[in-house]
Amino acid sequence: MLEQREATGAEEFYAGLEGHGLQGLWRVQTVSPEPQTAAQPHVWRGAMLRDQLMRACDVMTMERGAERRVLLLVNPGLRAITAATHTLTAAVQMIKPGEIAPTHRHTPTAIRFIIEGRGAYTTVEGEKLIMDEGDLILTPSWTWHDHGNETDRPIMWMDGLDRPLVSMLNASFFEPYADERQAVTLPIDCSQRRYAGGHVRPTWERGAPTFSPQHAYRFADVYATLSHLADLGEASPYDEVAVEYVNPLTGGHALPTLGCELQLLRPGRRTRAHRHTSSAVYQVFRGRGYSVIDGRRYDWEQGDLFALPTWAWHEHANASTSDEAILFSINDVPPMEALALHREQAYTANDGYQSYK
Amino acid sequence: MLEQREATGAEEFYAGLEGHGLQGLWRVQTVSPEPQTAAQPHVWRGAMLRDQLMRACDVMTMERGAERRVLLLVNPGLRAITAATHTLTAAVQMIKPGEIAPTHRHTPTAIRFIIEGRGAYTTVEGEKLIMDEGDLILTPSWTWHDHGNETDRPIMWMDGLDRPLVSMLNASFFEPYADERQAVTLPIDCSQRRYAGGHVRPTWERGAPTFSPQHAYRFADVYATLSHLADLGEASPYDEVAVEYVNPLTGGHALPTLGCELQLLRPGRRTRAHRHTSSAVYQVFRGRGYSVIDGRRYDWEQGDLFALPTWAWHEHANASTSDEAILFSINDVPPMEALALHREQAYTANDGYQSYK
Amino acid sequence: MLEQREATGAEEFYAGLEGHGLQGLWRVQTVSPEPQTAAQPHVWRGAMLRDQLMRACDVMTMERGAERRVLLLVNPGLRAITAATHTLTAAVQMIKPGEIAPTHRHTPTAIRFIIEGRGAYTTVEGEKLIMDEGDLILTPSWTWHDHGNETDRPIMWMDGLDRPLVSMLNASFFEPYADERQAVTLPIDCSQRRYAGGHVRPTWERGAPTFSPQHAYRFADVYATLSHLADLGEASPYDEVAVEYVNPLTGGHALPTLGCELQLLRPGRRTRAHRHTSSAVYQVFRGRGYSVIDGRRYDWEQGDLFALPTWAWHEHANASTSDEAILFSINDVPPMEALALHREQAYTANDGYQSYK
Amino acid sequence: MLEQREATGAEEFYAGLEGHGLQGLWRVQTVSPEPQTAAQPHVWRGAMLRDQLMRACDVMTMERGAERRVLLLVNPGLRAITAATHTLTAAVQMIKPGEIAPTHRHTPTAIRFIIEGRGAYTTVEGEKLIMDEGDLILTPSWTWHDHGNETDRPIMWMDGLDRPLVSMLNASFFEPYADERQAVTLPIDCSQRRYAGGHVRPTWERGAPTFSPQHAYRFADVYATLSHLADLGEASPYDEVAVEYVNPLTGGHALPTLGCELQLLRPGRRTRAHRHTSSAVYQVFRGRGYSVIDGRRYDWEQGDLFALPTWAWHEHANASTSDEAILFSINDVPPMEALALHREQAYTANDGYQSYK
Repeated sequence: MLEQREATGAEEFYAGLEGHGLQGLWRVQTVSPEPQTAAQPHVWRGAMLRDQLMRACDVMTMERGAERRVLLLVNPGLRAITAATHTLTAAVQMIKPGEIAPTHRHTPTAIRFIIEGRGAYTTVEGEKLIMDEGDLILTPSWTWHDHGNETDRPIMWMDGLDRPLVSMLNASFFEPYADERQAVTLPIDCSQRRYAGGHVRPTWERGAPTFSPQHAYRFADVYATLSHLADLGEASPYDEVAVEYVNPLTGGHALPTLGCELQLLRPGRRTRAHRHTSSAVYQVFRGRGYSVIDGRRYDWEQGDLFALPTWAWHEHANASTSDEAILFSINDVPPMEALALHREQAYTANDGYQSYK
Repeated sequence: MLEQREATGAEEFYAGLEGHGLQGLWRVQTVSPEPQTAAQPHVWRGAMLRDQLMRACDVMTMERGAERRVLLLVNPGLRAITAATHTLTAAVQMIKPGEIAPTHRHTPTAIRFIIEGRGAYTTVEGEKLIMDEGDLILTPSWTWHDHGNETDRPIMWMDGLDRPLVSMLNASFFEPYADERQAVTLPIDCSQRRYAGGHVRPTWERGAPTFSPQHAYRFADVYATLSHLADLGEASPYDEVAVEYVNPLTGGHALPTLGCELQLLRPGRRTRAHRHTSSAVYQVFRGRGYSVIDGRRYDWEQGDLFALPTWAWHEHANASTSDEAILFSINDVPPMEALALHREQAYTANDGYQSYK
Repeated sequence: MLEQREATGAEEFYAGLEGHGLQGLWRVQTVSPEPQTAAQPHVWRGAMLRDQLMRACDVMTMERGAERRVLLLVNPGLRAITAATHTLTAAVQMIKPGEIAPTHRHTPTAIRFIIEGRGAYTTVEGEKLIMDEGDLILTPSWTWHDHGNETDRPIMWMDGLDRPLVSMLNASFFEPYADERQAVTLPIDCSQRRYAGGHVRPTWERGAPTFSPQHAYRFADVYATLSHLADLGEASPYDEVAVEYVNPLTGGHALPTLGCELQLLRPGRRTRAHRHTSSAVYQVFRGRGYSVIDGRRYDWEQGDLFALPTWAWHEHANASTSDEAILFSINDVPPMEALALHREQAYTANDGYQSYK
Repeated sequence: MLEQREATGAEEFYAGLEGHGLQGLWRVQTVSPEPQTAAQPHVWRGAMLRDQLMRACDVMTMERGAERRVLLLVNPGLRAITAATHTLTAAVQMIKPGEIAPTHRHTPTAIRFIIEGRGAYTTVEGEKLIMDEGDLILTPSWTWHDHGNETDRPIMWMDGLDRPLVSMLNASFFEPYADERQAVTLPIDCSQRRYAGGHVRPTWERGAPTFSPQHAYRFADVYATLSHLADLGEASPYDEVAVEYVNPLTGGHALPTLGCELQLLRPGRRTRAHRHTSSAVYQVFRGRGYSVIDGRRYDWEQGDLFALPTWAWHEHANASTSDEAILFSINDVPPMEALALHREQAYTANDGYQSYK
């Protein structure tokens, strides 16, 4: 036992350490044998989210008020940091016709994935981007951005941010813009039209920017690739038919701190289980199914969001034998890879499928 | 004078050197003050090329015959190597309905740019690519490829190769395929559909291949980007609205030894002159105009090809004030950059425009 | 005021959010205008550290006991995580003659910087590295390592780890070795001899490893470079004559999550102030001087360690006009750069020097 | 037969092609099945080289004369380009006490490997580098350089250049300096002292330069690494104990167009044969032995140089059972790799050893 090993005077010695700004390493557990996380698997229902956002529309009217009508998804294990996983913020946002979410910028990087509605806009650094269901819109770190809705129907989207990561790294900067709206200095959807057209680049444009210069990725384009891969029968055993959004000027991650993926679960398919040192938040864009996370089944359907903690065994299943299920997700793969901390492990028992309850 | 500097016995000494496998550096001029090239500016007329190809169809019937009905563009200064510039081969090829150009592979990399006709195919490593006017088709180094025409009309395209470069580097390998046609093992236009859809990549696909894995670039896609840039008013003073075809997985050159560009000269525009240590061959895809090369004017119109030697001052002009001119070109920029030998110089006199005759 | 903006039912609405796993973004402050850190500037005195370690030698005898006789430097603002800054662990360790710190491995990366003594060893993946004053020894992530002292005098070093970073990213793995000591399978100082000899690499060795394959950097070598730079008069206005330890196979950071630097303050020199989104812990290897951190002066002398929090204005001064001061430091520059979160700002008032008390 | 395949009028058609600047691809052989080179294996004897250089000292006195007393090694197959292989120039140079080889610069990159003598200098961009036996001195593309001998004995070295490569790429630029000597603006051996000291880099120095910023590599340092590898028993089956000189800021090739290697053949060792699409020129720095190239044996001893053409089978043997043999060599591996044209093949018959005569 520990006490037997310690000499006379140990107690006094230990008592004195704190005053010196010290602690015996052998008195604290510092490195766990495997990753531990306070985050829990959790599902937020789409109907509930829509309902609460509608109520927020009444309550939070935006006149001279809060900057964004955003409901943060708070993981039950992470209430102290109001985060979805230890590194990721996920939220839903609604903007009613005529409303404006004023211009600001911050070092946390954000993405928007449009859940419902079309025709509203995000402006990023002078480029107005029209938003439609299934589109992905990027606001890289420290870019001026604002949102508005000039249509006659509300729009609702998912916000994804690396805010907990940036916050734990003590690297948060925030700045409001002088005006509500920034000037639109570029043609609409300018960056998408610049880069989406067939893998060419202007001859005068050099270099490999860290953040993707393309700010909108259209659902139709990405879905076309997913369908093509599904036709080819190409799929990952763990992620089914899945693609990552990339930076057109590097072929690498679109954003250095936040990964974005779209995955198609073919009818009737269930993936094998694995786990990794990255966490994720999923939005069920189409279909219904379930995920088995650390031996427990979580059902989901269109509109739901769910959190996957780090190092949790997980597998996904499409519950329909006729319809596709499509999941959008954000993750912290890019930072974990950049820091050489990404690990992955396949579940080998039971042919790769977890038992669940 | 040289003789005065030399001591008695010099002549005998020099005479003996060759027998020892030596030569006095001071007796030969080895490094020129500026690049020298045997290549000359030269235009090959489209009408002539088409006519000669039609004649070649009669003469060179392909039954058990030559592998390709290809007319090499021979630069008047480079007859010894039957090349268009010191590093580039350019040629025109025609395939009649029902014909096949049998399968082979070689270390020189090739591209095809379709001048006229549609519906014929190139197969690259099991992927059949349908060819249409203005499309670019890649056959990277050492990939099996064959061509065929299953339509009822001839097809004509430009071939571009780095053959002179590979040949001067003593790195030519060639291999015929066992059969005329290779098996088509992948869906038609597979790589284009995999990569062209909106800048995503399968999550299981890693790495940055040296050669573009996308084998076809469609004219409509590239032209859309050119038009967008033209709308933005973005252009190079030397190249007008120009884009380079890139590798979707790196954002860099599509091919390590051969650059491919498409450039749009807006109506009435004339570029400023510059020169560089890269050479090029242009195909006039649409429109008419002229280029001033080292002080001499070369007119061109749709269908023509012309060679631009290394380090020659050059500028391009669209002769129409109403119609666009579109030039496709191949160049040796990628190897010159890779070897840190690329240089560029702007023509500064006369506001950047050469006088010409 | 906020209340005025909120409609009837707001209170009830807010009360219900938590039960749904939600929170209104406008109810929490999430992104600070500038970085905030709980860490404080703090100095640990060398005499005190040595004294406490000597006492620990009596108290913590290691027989079947704790794995390492390590005193963690606990920042007064970071007691909850027993860390020196929010991302860095710093500690002092002592091993008495005959003692062994048994073999284990963990995903946190560690470095040792030898403060006092010579001749003890660290073994890393079968390579025994002899430790001498001023040397830097690396134990990259997940490498087996153990320490021992076969001399007749105690050895004392500084430990630096990215443990808080790895821990906040939920990526800690730890594994003990089957035996106390791992087998020494390679010649002593093998990696240093392989890479330190004049910038060559074996022709059969390819690639760019993420972690430096050189495990020991000798003080004499690094000091020679510092002296040379000092002779040249080359120095940074903020860091004086400072070098970073690099990976010989990439020229980049030696470790992806932990930066290591050695800096020489020439006699009488005082740097200008700046701040950055990286934190650091310094060990005063030679000399005496002071640092001004956020307007307060902290004196230091040989043997002291001190912590520099993120985004704190700081400048360093050598208090001697005749002797050099040498500071070793660890920092989180590599991860901050990898995540595109590194920022730096020069102090412009008062010619770059802070007033202090 | 070909004639049978050709229709009436073929002859006339072919006759007309040349006038149109065309040639039928099927009428010329363009791509060989395997690399063909005009270069031949060839040995230049050290005694002969020294003798001819001494004679050149009498004949070529340098007063207002030729810029360099350099004897080019002319491959018997490459007299037209006075080159050692198709891409490499090799030569020997001698400078007598008091002589100066005046300052100039050119786009071809050069290296010097010191064969005999010590104390003379090369100045590169203001940095004076003292030359000693076995040292490697770099003069990267377009750097001002001059040589001089302030000692009382002649110095003799090997020059290696990529001149044939640069020349075939039409990229030669040359410029004389205004004065004979450039100003020495940096401390002697400055770059070596900056980078050779233990793998650190100044914190203010960023980026990955294409050309090594270290201009001298000392024999003693490189030999120490070779000896260490020999002690470890690490060696390539084809190159024995061989290292490449690298760029300290990238870990890659020291020069983008010219590879430099030093290899140690342990007593009694004979390598297995292989061939590759790179060529090389060797200088026998120490020892004696032989190489078998395409089935023929070439003996060599200290002071000899020999050329290895592309794609020639080759193996090297140390003829002594007691003494090491050391070969320095230059090659075109870096450009061939950069252009994705490097290939290597092992000789598999006869346990890897060629029969020879």
